[in-house]
Amino acid sequence: MIYITRRLEFCASHRLFNPSFSDEKNAATFGLCNNPNGHGHNYVLEVTVKGEVDPETGMVLDLKALKKLINEKIIDRVDHKNLNVDVDFLQGVIPTAENIAIKFWERIKPHIHNGTLCEIKLYESERNFVIYRGESIESIH
Amino acid sequence: MIYITRRLEFCASHRLFNPSFSDEKNAATFGLCNNPNGHGHNYVLEVTVKGEVDPETGMVLDLKALKKLINEKIIDRVDHKNLNVDVDFLQGVIPTAENIAIKFWERIKPHIHNGTLCEIKLYESERNFVIYRGESIESIH
Amino acid sequence: MIYITRRLEFCASHRLFNPSFSDEKNAATFGLCNNPNGHGHNYVLEVTVKGEVDPETGMVLDLKALKKLINEKIIDRVDHKNLNVDVDFLQGVIPTAENIAIKFWERIKPHIHNGTLCEIKLYESERNFVIYRGESIESIH
Amino acid sequence: MIYITRRLEFCASHRLFNPSFSDEKNAATFGLCNNPNGHGHNYVLEVTVKGEVDPETGMVLDLKALKKLINEKIIDRVDHKNLNVDVDFLQGVIPTAENIAIKFWERIKPHIHNGTLCEIKLYESERNFVIYRGESIESIH
Amino acid sequence: MIYITRRLEFCASHRLFNPSFSDEKNAATFGLCNNPNGHGHNYVLEVTVKGEVDPETGMVLDLKALKKLINEKIIDRVDHKNLNVDVDFLQGVIPTAENIAIKFWERIKPHIHNGTLCEIKLYESERNFVIYRGESIESIH
Amino acid sequence: MIYITRRLEFCASHRLFNPSFSDEKNAATFGLCNNPNGHGHNYVLEVTVKGEVDPETGMVLDLKALKKLINEKIIDRVDHKNLNVDVDFLQGVIPTAENIAIKFWERIKPHIHNGTLCEIKLYESERNFVIYRGESIESIH
Repeated sequence: MIYITRRLEFCASHRLFNPSFSDEKNAATFGLCNNPNGHGHNYVLEVTVKGEVDPETGMVLDLKALKKLINEKIIDRVDHKNLNVDVDFLQGVIPTAENIAIKFWERIKPHIHNGTLCEIKLYESERNFVIYRGESIESIH
Repeated sequence: MIYITRRLEFCASHRLFNPSFSDEKNAATFGLCNNPNGHGHNYVLEVTVKGEVDPETGMVLDLKALKKLINEKIIDRVDHKNLNVDVDFLQGVIPTAENIAIKFWERIKPHIHNGTLCEIKLYESERNFVIYRGESIESIH
Repeated sequence: MIYITRRLEFCASHRLFNPSFSDEKNAATFGLCNNPNGHGHNYVLEVTVKGEVDPETGMVLDLKALKKLINEKIIDRVDHKNLNVDVDFLQGVIPTAENIAIKFWERIKPHIHNGTLCEIKLYESERNFVIYRGESIESIH
Repeated sequence: MIYITRRLEFCASHRLFNPSFSDEKNAATFGLCNNPNGHGHNYVLEVTVKGEVDPETGMVLDLKALKKLINEKIIDRVDHKNLNVDVDFLQGVIPTAENIAIKFWERIKPHIHNGTLCEIKLYESERNFVIYRGESIESIH
Repeated sequence: MIYITRRLEFCASHRLFNPSFSDEKNAATFGLCNNPNGHGHNYVLEVTVKGEVDPETGMVLDLKALKKLINEKIIDRVDHKNLNVDVDFLQGVIPTAENIAIKFWERIKPHIHNGTLCEIKLYESERNFVIYRGESIESIH
Repeated sequence: MIYITRRLEFCASHRLFNPSFSDEKNAATFGLCNNPNGHGHNYVLEVTVKGEVDPETGMVLDLKALKKLINEKIIDRVDHKNLNVDVDFLQGVIPTAENIAIKFWERIKPHIHNGTLCEIKLYESERNFVIYRGESIESIH
């Protein structure tokens, strides 16, 4: 059992706000990230798949195919975009790193057949990052 | 003569376009960076000052004071902002890394009295960065 | 369930020695780190909290509040300090990365109420780092 | 229980191919990595050992001894080498990151007595890396 | 006058030796890098062009075009290659970082028309890198 | 003419103060760096030598010899040391990055015969670094 990770980057803008909050509550909750005209980041995405090593190839999976999948399903949709308005699969979602990571998981999970998707790590910056492993509370002791 | 550099970071969104261009020309000129709803970056800014070492302190200048100056004149104005609409000193300027670096130079040059500002280095990402040294064509052989 | 991490830095000096050891045993045990006048590092600290995403905010917790907590309880106490003599909560402890990480865990664990502290990662340098997850031997199979 | 990691680097060349495949299948399977004359990488290796902190030393183990072990058993054997032909313990193995990580695990596992080897992380580049934790399928739920 | 840099990466293998040297002299001169079966690196290439900012675009040049040029003239020719045998423009050259940088300069210099090529920086690793600025001894005071 | 750089690291502690200043003036001048018991850093040192490429070797100089020289003259003397008390060539000098860089220049300049020492770059952290090029005011226009 090996864990293999592919790292990719994209840059995007976003604004954090909840349309059902008052302006004051949005400002208090989201701070600088609530700036009405938005701001942005160079995001770093790490996708980790676990699986057995195929003895014929020495590989868990074809990394070229994994890269192609991530580019098609995620990077091409979010790179150089405004995450609040340009990305259909983020519509109706506050684009925090947490929510983006969960949505990325949902985007590619059904398409990974060699090995099992086990982790999405998303860096908003070197200082802030989140990890999603597909866990729900019930499945955690 | 020593060159001393302070590195700071900010995140911001921008859109590259020239209002006098047609949509087609804007798209052809600026590519992905022309996305109407913008995108963003974690910018890294390095400010370099050169000067003599003061024998009483062993320092060219007070780095705390330099950091305070850069924060007041630059970082607090651009961090978590939209560079096209939120920053008065960038109004009327296409917010490319080149133009931003030049404007940053102009913002702090008059306020550096211990030593001489000699370089602004601005990373839009690890892959793209610009350096401005206050040079005009005439002053370069 | 999401894991969210905040990264911070501090610089400090330390000396590794056990006052109950002979000088020879201290030198043999701690090597270069036993230098009587100490040495130092730029430490990097990553604090990871896990929790559910609040659907109203899209966040596990308020990162600004987490940063404030870590600064008050840890960074302000150790940054630009000598870990052997300046830090009350490290008194009587050999300031190895292992021990510092455990003490940091104890410092902030009681104060994290949104989500659960799950990991302290402490880099002494890029080449050496430790992780503490609050585990005792008994709780590990 | 603490996890302590030592990071080391080596540079090496390799070529990915399966001698039982046709040239066409090798090219299709391994892509650019199948180049007949090979290519190479600056590999980064992180070895993680977990254990209890010895109260007399504040350490899980002697990092100097761990570094010496990794250098003798691994780094000195692979650094500035061709992984296909120069490394006896990789003979008969397709030198993918997956296989190299497993072989590195086997090389040092028997020699770690203070604490337990728990992870080999091998970066082929910043963009591709694998983790091996000694797991076989049977031991994973 | 602005300096704009584009960073790209490639991985390759090489062996340092001078065919007119004896084996002993090759070993003494090139050390580990003389390993007969070669070794390799993840090289990082930074290409810097200087020029005036075009007031219509806010840019020195079209970075997309610069990236395309570097990929065509350099990266596609050396990535995942053996620098001793696979690269026509390096034939007859000992593939040290110094020589590679000079050859890269010669490859792209004639094709840069907006702005002036002013620096090739080539990292063999984080620890070793060279810079070439097109200077010959005569032109330096 | 090529510029070749070797990067090395060391960790050390220091305290900034001028013994002829009052405690108040020391505190005001050096801020956190004036902590009586010191603090420390993981310093990064980059030494750059410029020279012609020897056509017989493709190298400006023997990097192994340069590394050996820097280790003997600098790293072995400052690594895991207290820069205020353990380093003879820093006695009587306030150990700011500026002064350390100048002293490092003086330590190795006389010993570099292949090529010319042209730059010492010293990082106290990723955020603060200095460059010394052996320039005195008189030699700069």
